[in-house]
Amino acid sequence: MIVEMKKGATREEIDAVVEKAKSQGLDVQLNLGTDKTVVALLGSNTGQLPTDIFAVLPGVESVTRIMKPYKLASREFKPSGSKVSCSGVEIGGERIIVIAGPCAVESEEQLTEAAVAVKKAGASILRGGAFKPRTSPFSFQGLQKVGLELLAKAREKTGMPVVTEVVEPKDVELVASYSDMLQIGSRNMQNYSLLTDAGRSHRPVVLKRGFSCTITEWLTAADYLLAEGNSVVLCERGIRTFEDSIRFSMDISSIPVLKRFSHLPVIVDPSHAAGHYSLVPAIAKAAVAAGADGLLIEVHPNPKEALVDGLQSLSPSDFTRLMEELKTIAKSVGRYI
Amino acid sequence: MIVEMKKGATREEIDAVVEKAKSQGLDVQLNLGTDKTVVALLGSNTGQLPTDIFAVLPGVESVTRIMKPYKLASREFKPSGSKVSCSGVEIGGERIIVIAGPCAVESEEQLTEAAVAVKKAGASILRGGAFKPRTSPFSFQGLQKVGLELLAKAREKTGMPVVTEVVEPKDVELVASYSDMLQIGSRNMQNYSLLTDAGRSHRPVVLKRGFSCTITEWLTAADYLLAEGNSVVLCERGIRTFEDSIRFSMDISSIPVLKRFSHLPVIVDPSHAAGHYSLVPAIAKAAVAAGADGLLIEVHPNPKEALVDGLQSLSPSDFTRLMEELKTIAKSVGRYI
Amino acid sequence: MIVEMKKGATREEIDAVVEKAKSQGLDVQLNLGTDKTVVALLGSNTGQLPTDIFAVLPGVESVTRIMKPYKLASREFKPSGSKVSCSGVEIGGERIIVIAGPCAVESEEQLTEAAVAVKKAGASILRGGAFKPRTSPFSFQGLQKVGLELLAKAREKTGMPVVTEVVEPKDVELVASYSDMLQIGSRNMQNYSLLTDAGRSHRPVVLKRGFSCTITEWLTAADYLLAEGNSVVLCERGIRTFEDSIRFSMDISSIPVLKRFSHLPVIVDPSHAAGHYSLVPAIAKAAVAAGADGLLIEVHPNPKEALVDGLQSLSPSDFTRLMEELKTIAKSVGRYI
Amino acid sequence: MIVEMKKGATREEIDAVVEKAKSQGLDVQLNLGTDKTVVALLGSNTGQLPTDIFAVLPGVESVTRIMKPYKLASREFKPSGSKVSCSGVEIGGERIIVIAGPCAVESEEQLTEAAVAVKKAGASILRGGAFKPRTSPFSFQGLQKVGLELLAKAREKTGMPVVTEVVEPKDVELVASYSDMLQIGSRNMQNYSLLTDAGRSHRPVVLKRGFSCTITEWLTAADYLLAEGNSVVLCERGIRTFEDSIRFSMDISSIPVLKRFSHLPVIVDPSHAAGHYSLVPAIAKAAVAAGADGLLIEVHPNPKEALVDGLQSLSPSDFTRLMEELKTIAKSVGRYI
Repeated sequence: MIVEMKKGATREEIDAVVEKAKSQGLDVQLNLGTDKTVVALLGSNTGQLPTDIFAVLPGVESVTRIMKPYKLASREFKPSGSKVSCSGVEIGGERIIVIAGPCAVESEEQLTEAAVAVKKAGASILRGGAFKPRTSPFSFQGLQKVGLELLAKAREKTGMPVVTEVVEPKDVELVASYSDMLQIGSRNMQNYSLLTDAGRSHRPVVLKRGFSCTITEWLTAADYLLAEGNSVVLCERGIRTFEDSIRFSMDISSIPVLKRFSHLPVIVDPSHAAGHYSLVPAIAKAAVAAGADGLLIEVHPNPKEALVDGLQSLSPSDFTRLMEELKTIAKSVGRYI
Repeated sequence: MIVEMKKGATREEIDAVVEKAKSQGLDVQLNLGTDKTVVALLGSNTGQLPTDIFAVLPGVESVTRIMKPYKLASREFKPSGSKVSCSGVEIGGERIIVIAGPCAVESEEQLTEAAVAVKKAGASILRGGAFKPRTSPFSFQGLQKVGLELLAKAREKTGMPVVTEVVEPKDVELVASYSDMLQIGSRNMQNYSLLTDAGRSHRPVVLKRGFSCTITEWLTAADYLLAEGNSVVLCERGIRTFEDSIRFSMDISSIPVLKRFSHLPVIVDPSHAAGHYSLVPAIAKAAVAAGADGLLIEVHPNPKEALVDGLQSLSPSDFTRLMEELKTIAKSVGRYI
Repeated sequence: MIVEMKKGATREEIDAVVEKAKSQGLDVQLNLGTDKTVVALLGSNTGQLPTDIFAVLPGVESVTRIMKPYKLASREFKPSGSKVSCSGVEIGGERIIVIAGPCAVESEEQLTEAAVAVKKAGASILRGGAFKPRTSPFSFQGLQKVGLELLAKAREKTGMPVVTEVVEPKDVELVASYSDMLQIGSRNMQNYSLLTDAGRSHRPVVLKRGFSCTITEWLTAADYLLAEGNSVVLCERGIRTFEDSIRFSMDISSIPVLKRFSHLPVIVDPSHAAGHYSLVPAIAKAAVAAGADGLLIEVHPNPKEALVDGLQSLSPSDFTRLMEELKTIAKSVGRYI
Repeated sequence: MIVEMKKGATREEIDAVVEKAKSQGLDVQLNLGTDKTVVALLGSNTGQLPTDIFAVLPGVESVTRIMKPYKLASREFKPSGSKVSCSGVEIGGERIIVIAGPCAVESEEQLTEAAVAVKKAGASILRGGAFKPRTSPFSFQGLQKVGLELLAKAREKTGMPVVTEVVEPKDVELVASYSDMLQIGSRNMQNYSLLTDAGRSHRPVVLKRGFSCTITEWLTAADYLLAEGNSVVLCERGIRTFEDSIRFSMDISSIPVLKRFSHLPVIVDPSHAAGHYSLVPAIAKAAVAAGADGLLIEVHPNPKEALVDGLQSLSPSDFTRLMEELKTIAKSVGRYI
């Protein structure tokens, strides 16, 4: 952590910074420039210290953090990449894992049809929403417990593990009792109560990126889950920008950035970013080429009749065609689906 | 809602749109342009209908919503401005209400000192965080129930109503039993379970803007609270942009925009936007001049020793000086503090 | 164009809108809803009409544009994709075109070394900056005319066409006399004098996206060039967002969006987006998988000694390795390099 | 400048950084942490050095700039605030300067009517566009030289100095021969040729903020003008964000930030940010309360007939009413209009 003093800061002001640092167990090195004094604070936990405790002192111009604020999620903490097992399906290995299924579980028939189709096309894990956080209070809110039961049934029929979103701390236990993996949605990435409770569950967690959160904030949120001993898969799903031709801008660069700074597996959700089925294939292909460890794709047996997000859902035949293309691209980057 | 058909869309495709619209109880008017057909869908609930159900049909180029997706929060629903009462303190009237106090309740002494100081300077409501959502799992998480008790004590001593944040649905009842008003934080603006539960409490709610949510999304979130019969005060607290010299960019324009499109009172939190005490006064003054109905300002008896966000907190003497300036500005726009 | 009237708009106010529309040669259809009147304006040029001329009329609540504001760049104007020839190298065909070379031309030796290396690795066009727009007035501003001469020499030696940036209208003619293709940089995307003059030159233009411009604004800028009869290659180079781990966020989704709405070829510059050589390969691969028609990659014989942007430049050996990977990915999407 | 070495960086790698620093005339201080080595580079010109020259070296994890990249525009360079004289009207003093007039000069009658009205209401400087950069090639591009002549005439009649935009380097001399102050528009903030030429003119320059440029980039652009010996007034005009209810989000916080980091006067253009006349007054008032030294407001004798941007223009009577309100607010912050 670097404390830049104001031009003309007094000896007393500099001393106060040094003292504060020492009280936090930090080593201090004074760099006396011609114009200004710069104080370097050294220690293994400077990433976790708030910069405010120095910035608030008189004579301080700025405080710059050099160490990252996250720890357990960092590549430095664990130089080799992590693999996460979802009931036997390994995410983060050579195989690229495709998770597919409908946005919302609507009925046994709809879910079964989707499950059978995506399995046949090569998906490894079934997704489906039982609890739906909706922007309008007047919209369909999901089948909830019934939805979870239908997911469990679909797992029995197809043998695929299932993943579903949990939106409230009080539901963690219930959802974990049905689902092989928990999903924490974009709007809950910084819902710390939910993170802590999901961290304590016995199910691995897919942590979606908050649509306006930086990668640093995302990895810091992952620390919440990792601190409880759980394992985490990161899911990039697009960020909010000024561009209005698409629902969210897919931040494809986050894949190499995460691979550089973190050991966690990274999957990509092209459906929520695109908002339109016609844009999903290009984004999915880009993600595989850029090094993603998996994809999360919405597939509905009949998108025109979907209760939620039909426009971004692929039909089974479109999904099957896309999977063939993705297999070729996976091969071209030394992996397989 | 306007459905633009693709150039060369067939009669059958147009008919399918018309049929779908009629099945939703909408009136339809066909506008046959030279190049393209445009279908206007008319009805009183088109704001609440998802555009997807039309966009997914074959031959459709785009669907544009004309009506706003929120209803209860709209100025059209209630042309005169709303006033919200917080245990007798009216927000939304001629008086500009200043809510002040420490970011986090740390101790009885700290809270009392802050409460006495802000009351003396002219604040009407006391704020203080008991449950603190923190970006790092290793940070101070608030005094929780003890914090609530200290807030109640401070209310007794000073006669000021108190407002504090609730971060989880399960805590709504507890917090509502101590606090005169509930605050829903920026990261929870779209936490729909929390909105629903807070909506059902018997306390008015301060709904902070999600730091990357549009005004339309904000008002739609307010609909969740209003749908349960509760009353709502909106709190602008800055948005995330590319600018990095300040923590969040204060969206001052949201004040006149909200006044135009909504009947709800609007207050402004300059402290979280600024992130630095030296920037708080200018933003607070701008808010009053722009028409805000109140302010939410962090004040700490000793910012240098604050456990949370000391850098953005004003000292009692800085706050007192600012209040004097704000009173003059309030007067210059025909109001008072 | 859709004009929504205010609730309670008078007959006279509606008539004034209708009259204004007719004076612009538009057809009008009134949609009388239960609550509000909505006026649909029909005509082939509504995309080019400013919405303001209606929004400013009394009783108007909002004006929504349905048609796109660009015309010549639209896919509707030319349903099949365009191909652009750069001195015989065709951009927009089955072959993916790689343009490579140093950020700035520094010396004959440096440029030649780069040119020979990128050609050997499979690049088709040589890039190199002679006029450098720099954020600081104290930085290296490019070799200017000498740089152009060195580019021409390098073309002679290698047989590769060259592309270089033009930053001022007065230089268009000079640059066009040396370069096979003109590049208009991100900061000049809306420099309309430059667009008009470059449009009149006899060289095709690579139009980089303004780093904060929407796709709609980009295609509207392309209309400036196309209106003068020139041909255009679009170059996506990343957009400014809140994410700070990378210089610009690569907007990978713009590739399928552009393919849907425009007939122009699209290339991608991963180097400027990344800002760091280690992130370039993943972005380049993603671009090819997503359907880009080409790439623009910075290569420097010795990045450590580069005068400009060394950090984002690949060394010849890194570039050669990347090209091998790109060739495999190109093949997997049915194309070649 | 702080160079963070990778964990496990070798002695040779550290030495190479030290050597590079010394070759640039910098002092070096090594901070050997337990985990990592951090190299502090000290010198008076580290703000102007590109970080790349260190980041590109092997073993370097990150390079963080502590000093600002601008110099002449900084408050440190000139601790007291600057005042800029526009033909006798002083900007940056106790008086808040209002610059007003039509977006585009359309005719002698229109300009005269506007000029007389704004002068009567208390404006000090007349604005009017002669050269108009337009997003569509099919829009009105301004009266150009005739527009300049009309501005000069209006100055004669009213005695007010005039300011108008220059969009191309080649026009600088012409525009400077008619106008008392030059305006550089948002899209040209990083047009370095234009900055250099305008810097060399004998007219002070109003430098509008690029709508997606950081304050740091803005002040660095101002350095271009100051380096040529010219004087500069900064004009905040709103930034591009995700919010879509307004054209640009007014970054009100930039006022106190600029006052802290720069000595240059700051004015605010509420018209372009708002895009709608009904939002202009609130933003203008906020700007004055926040400490702006002036305003730039569009006024048109008949907004309904304006050729450009009529929707954001105030009518003379609306402007007169606003000026009365602004005078009261100015007084409340210890200034006058």
